[in-house]
Amino acid sequence: MNIALIGFGNVGQGFAAILRDKANDLHAQYGFDGKIVAVATGSRGTLYDPKGLDINALLIAIETGDLSAYPESATLERNWIVQRIATESNADAVVEVSPTNLQTGQPALDICYAALDSGKHVVLANKGPVAVAYHDLMKRAQAANKLVRFEATVMAGTPSIRLALQVLAGCKITSAKGILNGTTNYILTQMEGGMAYGSALQQAQELGYAETDPSGDVDGWDAAGKAIILGAALFGKQWTLDDLDVTGISGISSDDVAAAKQAGERWKLIATVTPEGGVVRPVRLSLADPLAGVGGATNAITYASDLMGDVTLIGAGAGRKETGFAALADLLDIHRLT
Amino acid sequence: MNIALIGFGNVGQGFAAILRDKANDLHAQYGFDGKIVAVATGSRGTLYDPKGLDINALLIAIETGDLSAYPESATLERNWIVQRIATESNADAVVEVSPTNLQTGQPALDICYAALDSGKHVVLANKGPVAVAYHDLMKRAQAANKLVRFEATVMAGTPSIRLALQVLAGCKITSAKGILNGTTNYILTQMEGGMAYGSALQQAQELGYAETDPSGDVDGWDAAGKAIILGAALFGKQWTLDDLDVTGISGISSDDVAAAKQAGERWKLIATVTPEGGVVRPVRLSLADPLAGVGGATNAITYASDLMGDVTLIGAGAGRKETGFAALADLLDIHRLT
Repeated sequence: MNIALIGFGNVGQGFAAILRDKANDLHAQYGFDGKIVAVATGSRGTLYDPKGLDINALLIAIETGDLSAYPESATLERNWIVQRIATESNADAVVEVSPTNLQTGQPALDICYAALDSGKHVVLANKGPVAVAYHDLMKRAQAANKLVRFEATVMAGTPSIRLALQVLAGCKITSAKGILNGTTNYILTQMEGGMAYGSALQQAQELGYAETDPSGDVDGWDAAGKAIILGAALFGKQWTLDDLDVTGISGISSDDVAAAKQAGERWKLIATVTPEGGVVRPVRLSLADPLAGVGGATNAITYASDLMGDVTLIGAGAGRKETGFAALADLLDIHRLT
Repeated sequence: MNIALIGFGNVGQGFAAILRDKANDLHAQYGFDGKIVAVATGSRGTLYDPKGLDINALLIAIETGDLSAYPESATLERNWIVQRIATESNADAVVEVSPTNLQTGQPALDICYAALDSGKHVVLANKGPVAVAYHDLMKRAQAANKLVRFEATVMAGTPSIRLALQVLAGCKITSAKGILNGTTNYILTQMEGGMAYGSALQQAQELGYAETDPSGDVDGWDAAGKAIILGAALFGKQWTLDDLDVTGISGISSDDVAAAKQAGERWKLIATVTPEGGVVRPVRLSLADPLAGVGGATNAITYASDLMGDVTLIGAGAGRKETGFAALADLLDIHRLT
């Protein structure tokens, strides 16, 4: 399978490294041979080699800051724009791991459309296109007889999407309720340990969980984007951020946390998704709730269903390897089904 | 898909009811049309109708205690033995839900072999054949180009097997650690609430969690059978019960439970499976362990893996609907792959 990688930050590099390190296993166990034929970045260059790029050389080049350090070869092209890669390259699948824009989904959305329209499968770690245009993406995919997968967009490689859409097939899922943002869960966990909100946030930033501008996390928008994706995937809804009821954690004080603790409860930033709508807000959970025990930057989701009652999945919600694995898992699924 | 149901107790009836109640959804969403053509019981009769049996009439008949109450029809056969159904019926898949024998796997194991050898897929809720002869079953299936599925054998319909074998494909799983027996978890949870062991056991029996002879549960053998299945499926091992280190919960006193509680810990009967072996024993878990928060008859499993770290799945471990769903999920998987 020839792969075009759109975006080559942490997740893209993690994915490439997995593809390199697991090449033998993937061939032996699943008959899967993934070859990266193109890498496109926003400002650090673009490479296309229809014969395949060398992953080691890619990772070394990007460490110098720029793909221009990637060695020359007779078949290498350096100046293709992203749209051309999506359209004209010999990739079988486009893996979209560029930064998320939850308002427009762009520029990634148009890249996805171009890829599908020219007969390529699409795998996304980028939440934007999935949140903004889930149904259009699925329609285009169906028209092209290609597949769209997006496991990485919710809980990284922890298979929240596959669990709901494939593994629980036959069950009717009636709601999803999850801890979908690791940064805020880390902060709340530290606060329960006695740390003040500001210090916990600073620590989350130092650990790389939170951005320099942490508002996307602490104000609930990251979790809201994931709630939109779940609303679309589970219930066929196409909400915008404005349709959701979103409250972040910045209003939670140390006193609030202590009061919950004393009552045998815990504050968690919970995203709840039902056919009626999506809500993101801090909730005091009883310790008997499996989500209450989820500490640190870990994520979790509980699906309520007709036949199986509650099924809860707990695992990583971010990380280079963990998100890179999600893209691999999606490609393996496509490989198995095609 | 024509289905022969071997065993028509709680799980078999649950499965049949789901197939009836979900028929329209399964057809519309997955193009799946499941028809029960045969039902075999140990002592309550056997029915075979190549045109399909009426599920309502089956459920009404078995309520009278015996399948002889099932109405006559021109194509109905009443006296086929199980082996003949597995061999000569027009079933595409045999669903084995008869009682488990962890020592020999029989008589179910021979039924499974006969089914595979005569070109039928096999779905098991019966742990015996999977625990005793995993590799032989897989070899026979491969030779016949048919599939064997056994989701129901560990954690009922909570997809512990599919998660490990399919969804986490690409990850190397290094260990599994689980609460795999609901009865003992229920007893330990009640003891933590202050109840004595004997009363908690009695309550578990009244609720139908524990058998009249509870030793299979409380002495750890049920969990051990599941550990054997995980050892085979995850690590290619073929252990017997004698190969495992098994300790039940009957040695756990109220004082032990109280001491753990005071230390911020909880006793759980934990099955641990690694390539080196399987252990079932009561363990004091820190409350930070996601398994510690799993109360009542609920089951849970944590897979440790190279790329994803720990992934934990929590859900029902028993139940008529929940185990029936597992068989349906397996059939849907077979339907999708064939």
